[in-house]
Amino acid sequence: MSNPIYRLDPRLAADTHPVARWDLSDVLLMNDARFPWLILVPRVADATELFHLSSDQQSRVMAEMSGAGRAMQSLWSADKVNTAMLGNKVSQLHVHVIARFRKDDAWPGPVWGVGQPRPYTEAALGDCLNRLRSGLPRL
Amino acid sequence: MSNPIYRLDPRLAADTHPVARWDLSDVLLMNDARFPWLILVPRVADATELFHLSSDQQSRVMAEMSGAGRAMQSLWSADKVNTAMLGNKVSQLHVHVIARFRKDDAWPGPVWGVGQPRPYTEAALGDCLNRLRSGLPRL
Repeated sequence: MSNPIYRLDPRLAADTHPVARWDLSDVLLMNDARFPWLILVPRVADATELFHLSSDQQSRVMAEMSGAGRAMQSLWSADKVNTAMLGNKVSQLHVHVIARFRKDDAWPGPVWGVGQPRPYTEAALGDCLNRLRSGLPRL
Repeated sequence: MSNPIYRLDPRLAADTHPVARWDLSDVLLMNDARFPWLILVPRVADATELFHLSSDQQSRVMAEMSGAGRAMQSLWSADKVNTAMLGNKVSQLHVHVIARFRKDDAWPGPVWGVGQPRPYTEAALGDCLNRLRSGLPRL
């Protein structure tokens, strides 16, 4: 599924920590401790819209979105999972999968553009990555 | 795929106009003339998360999201399509598919919670529904 000229957008790389490499997508953790927030980036060069993916790639990204969402809800006992492909600022196709809570800083609105990101401390990042690496499915 | 006890959430019904009935989802137009904005609602009772759908239902909703997105980009010559499942306010599973423009009222932010909806005039609504009904795929 990989394309040899795929490159992760440098803004996505700067804002995240790598978590896992799935069959189609790289799994990244957004560096914002306010929200448990994954980004899935299909390794498909030049894709900016869901409909740029082949049918097989669409099936894989659906399985990855669904698996990530189920795990995020379970791992954090989330009230809701938000799943979104926006791309207005970073056009490279990427999927946000965010655990949301009735008491979080943006509820019930969306998280994008709300306040300032709060980077993880080193200890909190380690805990979060451990939780994700043991709790996420292997897709 | 339908479930006999599926009922469209009354808030979604109040905010939209019906456009089409696809294999899994009802296709609705958000009554906000600022943004060409479809809502797909899978006719699956009690589903609030993507991962509540069966694998076959997930495949269908992916085809519907992708087909809707391609058509919205093409029909409106959109700069970007935003595709999202949030559900913080209306928990019934529904997919936003929104044509976005670099000059629209919310760019580059998301549309939710920005300003006040601007309802379609009767004439503009008729034009929009005609365009959608001739330009959307039959899925």
